[in-house]
Amino acid sequence: MIRAGIVGGTGYTGVELLRILALHSEVDVTVVTSRADAGLRVDALYPSLRGHIDVAFSLPDVETLSQCDVVFFATPNGTAMLMAEQLLARGVKVIDLSADFRLKDAQEWSHWYGMKHACPDLIAEAVYGLPEVNREAIKQAELIACPGCYPTAVQLGFLPLIENGLIDIKHLIADVKSGVSGAGRKAELATLMSETGESFKAYAVNGHRHRPEITQGLSEVAGESVGLTFVPHLVPMIRGIHATLYGQLIAQIDGEAVKLNDIQALYEQRYRHEGFVDVLPQGSHPDTRNVRGSNNCQISIHQPQGLQVIVILSVIDNLVKGAAGQAVQNMNLMFGLNEGSGLKIIALYP
Amino acid sequence: MIRAGIVGGTGYTGVELLRILALHSEVDVTVVTSRADAGLRVDALYPSLRGHIDVAFSLPDVETLSQCDVVFFATPNGTAMLMAEQLLARGVKVIDLSADFRLKDAQEWSHWYGMKHACPDLIAEAVYGLPEVNREAIKQAELIACPGCYPTAVQLGFLPLIENGLIDIKHLIADVKSGVSGAGRKAELATLMSETGESFKAYAVNGHRHRPEITQGLSEVAGESVGLTFVPHLVPMIRGIHATLYGQLIAQIDGEAVKLNDIQALYEQRYRHEGFVDVLPQGSHPDTRNVRGSNNCQISIHQPQGLQVIVILSVIDNLVKGAAGQAVQNMNLMFGLNEGSGLKIIALYP
Amino acid sequence: MIRAGIVGGTGYTGVELLRILALHSEVDVTVVTSRADAGLRVDALYPSLRGHIDVAFSLPDVETLSQCDVVFFATPNGTAMLMAEQLLARGVKVIDLSADFRLKDAQEWSHWYGMKHACPDLIAEAVYGLPEVNREAIKQAELIACPGCYPTAVQLGFLPLIENGLIDIKHLIADVKSGVSGAGRKAELATLMSETGESFKAYAVNGHRHRPEITQGLSEVAGESVGLTFVPHLVPMIRGIHATLYGQLIAQIDGEAVKLNDIQALYEQRYRHEGFVDVLPQGSHPDTRNVRGSNNCQISIHQPQGLQVIVILSVIDNLVKGAAGQAVQNMNLMFGLNEGSGLKIIALYP
Amino acid sequence: MIRAGIVGGTGYTGVELLRILALHSEVDVTVVTSRADAGLRVDALYPSLRGHIDVAFSLPDVETLSQCDVVFFATPNGTAMLMAEQLLARGVKVIDLSADFRLKDAQEWSHWYGMKHACPDLIAEAVYGLPEVNREAIKQAELIACPGCYPTAVQLGFLPLIENGLIDIKHLIADVKSGVSGAGRKAELATLMSETGESFKAYAVNGHRHRPEITQGLSEVAGESVGLTFVPHLVPMIRGIHATLYGQLIAQIDGEAVKLNDIQALYEQRYRHEGFVDVLPQGSHPDTRNVRGSNNCQISIHQPQGLQVIVILSVIDNLVKGAAGQAVQNMNLMFGLNEGSGLKIIALYP
Repeated sequence: MIRAGIVGGTGYTGVELLRILALHSEVDVTVVTSRADAGLRVDALYPSLRGHIDVAFSLPDVETLSQCDVVFFATPNGTAMLMAEQLLARGVKVIDLSADFRLKDAQEWSHWYGMKHACPDLIAEAVYGLPEVNREAIKQAELIACPGCYPTAVQLGFLPLIENGLIDIKHLIADVKSGVSGAGRKAELATLMSETGESFKAYAVNGHRHRPEITQGLSEVAGESVGLTFVPHLVPMIRGIHATLYGQLIAQIDGEAVKLNDIQALYEQRYRHEGFVDVLPQGSHPDTRNVRGSNNCQISIHQPQGLQVIVILSVIDNLVKGAAGQAVQNMNLMFGLNEGSGLKIIALYP
Repeated sequence: MIRAGIVGGTGYTGVELLRILALHSEVDVTVVTSRADAGLRVDALYPSLRGHIDVAFSLPDVETLSQCDVVFFATPNGTAMLMAEQLLARGVKVIDLSADFRLKDAQEWSHWYGMKHACPDLIAEAVYGLPEVNREAIKQAELIACPGCYPTAVQLGFLPLIENGLIDIKHLIADVKSGVSGAGRKAELATLMSETGESFKAYAVNGHRHRPEITQGLSEVAGESVGLTFVPHLVPMIRGIHATLYGQLIAQIDGEAVKLNDIQALYEQRYRHEGFVDVLPQGSHPDTRNVRGSNNCQISIHQPQGLQVIVILSVIDNLVKGAAGQAVQNMNLMFGLNEGSGLKIIALYP
Repeated sequence: MIRAGIVGGTGYTGVELLRILALHSEVDVTVVTSRADAGLRVDALYPSLRGHIDVAFSLPDVETLSQCDVVFFATPNGTAMLMAEQLLARGVKVIDLSADFRLKDAQEWSHWYGMKHACPDLIAEAVYGLPEVNREAIKQAELIACPGCYPTAVQLGFLPLIENGLIDIKHLIADVKSGVSGAGRKAELATLMSETGESFKAYAVNGHRHRPEITQGLSEVAGESVGLTFVPHLVPMIRGIHATLYGQLIAQIDGEAVKLNDIQALYEQRYRHEGFVDVLPQGSHPDTRNVRGSNNCQISIHQPQGLQVIVILSVIDNLVKGAAGQAVQNMNLMFGLNEGSGLKIIALYP
Repeated sequence: MIRAGIVGGTGYTGVELLRILALHSEVDVTVVTSRADAGLRVDALYPSLRGHIDVAFSLPDVETLSQCDVVFFATPNGTAMLMAEQLLARGVKVIDLSADFRLKDAQEWSHWYGMKHACPDLIAEAVYGLPEVNREAIKQAELIACPGCYPTAVQLGFLPLIENGLIDIKHLIADVKSGVSGAGRKAELATLMSETGESFKAYAVNGHRHRPEITQGLSEVAGESVGLTFVPHLVPMIRGIHATLYGQLIAQIDGEAVKLNDIQALYEQRYRHEGFVDVLPQGSHPDTRNVRGSNNCQISIHQPQGLQVIVILSVIDNLVKGAAGQAVQNMNLMFGLNEGSGLKIIALYP
């Protein structure tokens, strides 16, 4: 059994890790930390876990965590970078669900996250945990930077088009919509039900932290810097991300104009062996409810009105494939388990 | 492997059965019927099931269904009673999630369900599938009448008080609230999002079909006819039932006035060995989200303001413990499996 | 024109007062205070008011407020009692939407609100602002204690039965459900959309501040102390209160058993001249959406299953008839205006 | 007083017309038709209107409607075109909220609406009722084709950029999100709360009826045919449309590269005298709740990350500025009233 620790177990990604790991047949959750709730039973805070977890929150402490084989950081940004080095030195694998190790450029990281990076040397070592791109590196990794929720949905949507040079990478548009759980479990006016219910809005149009993460990933695939307009929106629902992606077709396949059928085939081919990326039949519209609670990304491809604009629709559950599920998928790879262990979850519909 | 058939697989209880059975390690779903969608792949209608079920809807047909070991009816009322006899005659066990066999009195059934009962002789044979009351009978049963969603929440809430003669059974009050999925997957004005969203109302105050089912169950336990005022309400959410139950304390325990501590202990004792009924610590308020998607019933007991009124709060997911999950729990019992097989599901929070 | 001031203009009752008063033809809102947002234009915080209000938040200051004819307190509990005396001394009428002057017993007030009352002498002078009970006193009042939202819905529902001695006042039950805006505009975990959306729960079963307010009001009408079990619940919606009230019929009318028709007639008679209490036709179920944004209370009366239990359904918008609308109704009475001035608002459906 | 008739008074645009007209000081609603509900009091179907409207539904009949000064069609597509000619011949002004007269090309209309146009000759006579573009023509019109909800939000958002030739009109993108009331009051599976609640999806990506309406309007302004990618989405809320519009900057102002400040000034200038279009301060994000129930369109302009892409955010209430409110605005213009009569409504927040 793999002994797992969770630092920051009281946020939504923390409790989601618990939901998944509590039923994972090869994992024992032995440590769950929380500064605020140390001493309290985990299932006292989260009655949904009653009968499934028999641990109390403890203070975050390197010694205790060192007895784990793997430690997940489900913490606010800026925490993992303070503890990761010590844990790695003690042979503990680290999977960080926060943003601390996502950006390769420590300067840019500081710009977006408003603090100096505490261990810039570790950044190079961290593997960006998107299995559909970095599977082999993940298997060898000791430190994983789990992708953000928006970046997961956007990158999985754009990847096949960019890998094949089919669209104008200087004019990408990602119009993305998220449920409110993406804002985390924090007492804030902006995410009160009275503020977000029955309403819809864009936010952070002039700059969102996930944009540099997306452009870093897509630029690496493209081999050159991409240009991306990224507009996030808040949806009056709890879970789910829906990315609507726009790209201008520029290329040919085998000397012929690209047809939608070709692109459909390309996506199906690209994700044929991916257990958690599901290309829907042509003409489909993915619905976030169909991935709610599951680790799936569902994608469909459209070319509306015969224009040269390709529209990709990509949906995930922000807390699963966009956070805790993807983290467990990474863990499975790191420990040589079946990649889908513990992740055989069917979405909750309706 | 148990071969299972589902008649009426396109409703919410049908797709919920599929969600559970598709991951049940001892069941193969071999037949799923739908008159309207025969020929269509199940996962074309329900993309949440892609990768988990490889069956197409077929027309309901006794011969085909006879090849199953068990057939679930997730149909509108009035369908199971037309096919159950033939299936039973062919040795197939039948679990009816509709109301056809819930009421022991065929006259009363006709009154509430607006049609003549097609096989009143079978009614006596049917076992009411509330394992917390009828476990032994269920193990021997060939035909199960699965309890309705309201009756499950209300009966589990009242049972210990009535079994112990602690409250005035002539003046029970059940103020019960349900999410809209209880109304089923039918094109109806009343359950449009524009009609039910951001609003709350009572309905059917003058008479609801679940009332005779509840009084039948409670009267049997009480040994005499109970008096119940039952008021159902519609909550602007999809899943969940919350029963708020009121009873007047009338009795003593060991010659002393009953204290809340005693009742708390009584509930804990009563449900100690029940895997799906969870008595919360004193002072708790159960929240429907903590059982969403799971087969659990969470209960708490209050005695507000030192009055003689006991208030019981009882929550379930109407589609799981109130329908599909309870049906699978019954199936497990009927086939000698572990009662919780396939039902180890943690509620989806948030 | 009446010059009105609002102390605490940044909460939900404050902005709701602004929505109503900005269109009131006989009122000028001249002062809106907020400690946190002083200096900011009101419509910068509340873009819904752009074009309708041309004032900036100012610090709460008795001198400035003294230039008003009336000051509304839309503040947390404990604020109005610190300023009311000075304003009254300067001839300003005060309408308090908080709880400071609702309970006649200062001791009990302290018990429930967790602080010593700052001006107990004023309590006797305050008129409880439920126009359907206290209209004449309100017209003469200088200081109004606006009723709470739950107390408004519950009292209007029970009044005719109690005034006529038709039910057992020792065993009243009020099962009441509220939208989340009732919790106010405060950064709190418990009212995040991720916490309250798609879920339903009871809270404060063992004691809620509105219970003594309700029992005070009903006891006064009954002429003796009533016994009330009061259970509040949180509904996943923003606005609306639905009270489901249970009473045991005990009396006769003209020597005959009371029939539902009689009670229906009694309610219609009682509220015939009330502009904001609407008794629905027999058999109706009021829906909170039908009063959303309006100052109406809609009521229906049921006697289910021929039992002796009368069920009253009473709905209001907690921010209008339960707060700001009722406050304006009081103001109209105090200033000799038409009671409905500025309150001719049709509910927003759907 | 203007005598107004409403054909099709049972849908959401019909009841919204009633909400507005019932309080309009210069209008008497004298006829409200409904085939299905003829004979029923309007406020029996819509209890929110109790006390505000004293009319029963009648069968749609030209003679009765001829006694009106103006008739609104709040009907499904294909109805207004059957009656408009007769009403106009009798001197009745007609305001059609359906799509019958929106497209100037009867062929294209037939293509999108799946039926032959019944009176193509009238199309030329109809004035497209977007006051911000066609005010003078509307004043003279006898027949108004009210814009669709999406077209209103999209056109008001794009207009200033296109009128001034600032963006590449061949590559417009409109990513638009709507609440479910836009689908109307029809018994349909797709808009059940269980289907649309807590979920988000795109729909009709390959072709939506509102796209030709938008391109017709924008092309007329541009003086040449525009290229538009239009992707509608369904938001789990009842009211509101949020358009996120993307355009590539191509032009200069006074020989200089266009700066965001210039565009902001341009928008403010363009809509300075428009009572229902409100350009928010730079940096704002409009929120649909801030126009809920009101006739306002709120707009903000962004140029993210210094790219050449301009992002316009434009929000309306689909049932008000996107339907009934705009219809009344047209009526006011046609009858020489103050354009804002009856439309002084503040959005319902929260």
